[in-house]
Amino acid sequence: MNTEIIRHVREMCPLVHCITNYVTVNDVANMLLACGGSPIMADDIGEAADITSICNATVINIGTLNVRTIESMVAAGKRANELGHPVILDPVGAGASALRTETTFRLLKEVKFSVIRGNISEIKTVYAGSGSTKGVDADAADTVTEDNIGEAAAFAKELSARTGAVIAITGAIDVIADKDQAYITRNGVAAMSKITGTGCMLSAVIAAYYAANPDCPVEAVTAAIAAEGLCGEIAAKKAEEEGRGTSSLRTWLIDAMSNMDDETLAAGKKVERV
Amino acid sequence: MNTEIIRHVREMCPLVHCITNYVTVNDVANMLLACGGSPIMADDIGEAADITSICNATVINIGTLNVRTIESMVAAGKRANELGHPVILDPVGAGASALRTETTFRLLKEVKFSVIRGNISEIKTVYAGSGSTKGVDADAADTVTEDNIGEAAAFAKELSARTGAVIAITGAIDVIADKDQAYITRNGVAAMSKITGTGCMLSAVIAAYYAANPDCPVEAVTAAIAAEGLCGEIAAKKAEEEGRGTSSLRTWLIDAMSNMDDETLAAGKKVERV
Amino acid sequence: MNTEIIRHVREMCPLVHCITNYVTVNDVANMLLACGGSPIMADDIGEAADITSICNATVINIGTLNVRTIESMVAAGKRANELGHPVILDPVGAGASALRTETTFRLLKEVKFSVIRGNISEIKTVYAGSGSTKGVDADAADTVTEDNIGEAAAFAKELSARTGAVIAITGAIDVIADKDQAYITRNGVAAMSKITGTGCMLSAVIAAYYAANPDCPVEAVTAAIAAEGLCGEIAAKKAEEEGRGTSSLRTWLIDAMSNMDDETLAAGKKVERV
Repeated sequence: MNTEIIRHVREMCPLVHCITNYVTVNDVANMLLACGGSPIMADDIGEAADITSICNATVINIGTLNVRTIESMVAAGKRANELGHPVILDPVGAGASALRTETTFRLLKEVKFSVIRGNISEIKTVYAGSGSTKGVDADAADTVTEDNIGEAAAFAKELSARTGAVIAITGAIDVIADKDQAYITRNGVAAMSKITGTGCMLSAVIAAYYAANPDCPVEAVTAAIAAEGLCGEIAAKKAEEEGRGTSSLRTWLIDAMSNMDDETLAAGKKVERV
Repeated sequence: MNTEIIRHVREMCPLVHCITNYVTVNDVANMLLACGGSPIMADDIGEAADITSICNATVINIGTLNVRTIESMVAAGKRANELGHPVILDPVGAGASALRTETTFRLLKEVKFSVIRGNISEIKTVYAGSGSTKGVDADAADTVTEDNIGEAAAFAKELSARTGAVIAITGAIDVIADKDQAYITRNGVAAMSKITGTGCMLSAVIAAYYAANPDCPVEAVTAAIAAEGLCGEIAAKKAEEEGRGTSSLRTWLIDAMSNMDDETLAAGKKVERV
Repeated sequence: MNTEIIRHVREMCPLVHCITNYVTVNDVANMLLACGGSPIMADDIGEAADITSICNATVINIGTLNVRTIESMVAAGKRANELGHPVILDPVGAGASALRTETTFRLLKEVKFSVIRGNISEIKTVYAGSGSTKGVDADAADTVTEDNIGEAAAFAKELSARTGAVIAITGAIDVIADKDQAYITRNGVAAMSKITGTGCMLSAVIAAYYAANPDCPVEAVTAAIAAEGLCGEIAAKKAEEEGRGTSSLRTWLIDAMSNMDDETLAAGKKVERV
């Protein structure tokens, strides 16, 4: 695995245009800065494509989508495609409402994504919107466990082949794949599910890592996921030692990312090719 | 008082749909997770009712209302009523602008609330919109003090009788009442007024506690208020000991909620039936 | 320099209406509370002017402007002008998109600002929209350094003469000027650029300081900038001592502001008249 991924991010300081939800947007901005990137949020149709043009990558996160911002997402995504910039889709809650599912399908149709990151449920919804024929892999389980890593990896590869995007299914075990190769990462701790925004932040970190490492996208995505998971481990250890709770965990998660480097990641990552 | 209220919340992990303001929404989400619930924010009219349907409770907070989200509040509230889910109203700033006051009145007319929580000024505005006849209790003082607890409790009971909602008037002394009974809580510290969102977070915690304890709504609301106040006391003590300020207080408020259990609440609550 | 600026803020507790971006709005609210003010956010055209009317100052921050909120910014600014309340413009990203630049120009035309605060790039965009003739000072450098402080101060004075606003150009060295006088401040640390919102928070603090010290606006703005910079120094020292990262820095920045007083500022400020 490329051992200079983080150094590339800190050297380039990629500017990432985020059209994201208002719940976790501040954490997304601070996490982007912590990981070595720089954020800009702009969701009005009057400037979305313009802002995309001055950035190095675009994140589309449908967490609090609305009729106004959906059009901006499409416009920003299309412009990023024209310019050859990486575009990351975070289909938050796809499957939870018709609006989210239909918007996900529309985005998949109108924008070519570089990475699609979600939990298994969201990714299965993406799969449903990615083609007309139901593939065998749509029977993927509802959780990625030790017992079904192979099936999950095959599912992710199949979806990558359909969409052209690197697929990242995150959970206790994360699966990252393009059509030819798959990795799993086992970094992270359960307590991270007790703070909001770990997924949203991760999608933004992925954008920065991808933008700064265009020659090895799957490795860049895998490194981003392992890095945030490792930050969670560092933060959780400290929270436990000091008898703290979930808000301290959030603070220290971002702290750890701001101190992360390739050496720390190499020593702490739990990554396997599968 | 029911001694297993928090255990019920942590076991059920109620999913709470929040249509809330963008100022404190992140704290609301993290506080909901910390108290044992789970948040989902969705404010587009195209999905508001759908999201309500998959949740266990709904919070309507008018803190940064706008013409687009007001319709979503009404739609979500109505759907929650159809499904029998608890609906909490947080009339932030009712009385401060005609838009907020009129929206509060409209919500009271179109949605049946389970709980209405606000400061005395907001609750008096709610009272003004709750019926055509001015009752004696509308003369309630501008602050709940040791000297007027009885009057405040009678006012809250009267408003509960009019609206069918549990009424929670929060301040230095909090008053919680349905039409038949009233409690006061004295937990909390003045420093909590120096961080934004303690009220918004509290309304969300109330939703989670209510959803998981439908058989004792007044007790559930009272427990939520006492619990957040106790968390504030724990956080403020720590902030003072370590020479910190208001942002640390916010972090530790949420930390304390993530560690709260029925035993800690029983030992620390300052609750009286009045 | 007035030695009671902060005392005035804490005594008055000015209520500040903020129409600001959703990225940093929570930090803005908490920083306002920490500095001695009180925040209210309201961006719907149906109430923007009403809310302005009950406040002591107004902040217009175009960080995530949209077609809906631009009209509210204009309405709030005009009402503040009618009432003689201070109005602060934070032209976030002016120059980065046509929408932001045009909105900045429109605001400059329709609203008389008391203070305009931005980085050198944003302020140069403001300059471009402040008159029909290009002045010599529009050649101001892209960074304020030891070598061009005089030119930067002359540029700020010229822009102040054109707009009637106190001009604050913030960066490693900050320049504050009205048409007759200029100050520089050297407080702050580079690490502050690794957290989002330091500029947005500063604009809100400026509003509170200005509102409570109407007799010495340039000094009030200078004190606000020095105070936040000093808070950054205090926070960064602590973060380094404890081996923390950027999110702890953010927490302690706000903590430090909540503990700031005139004596601490007098001892730590690095202010010069130039």
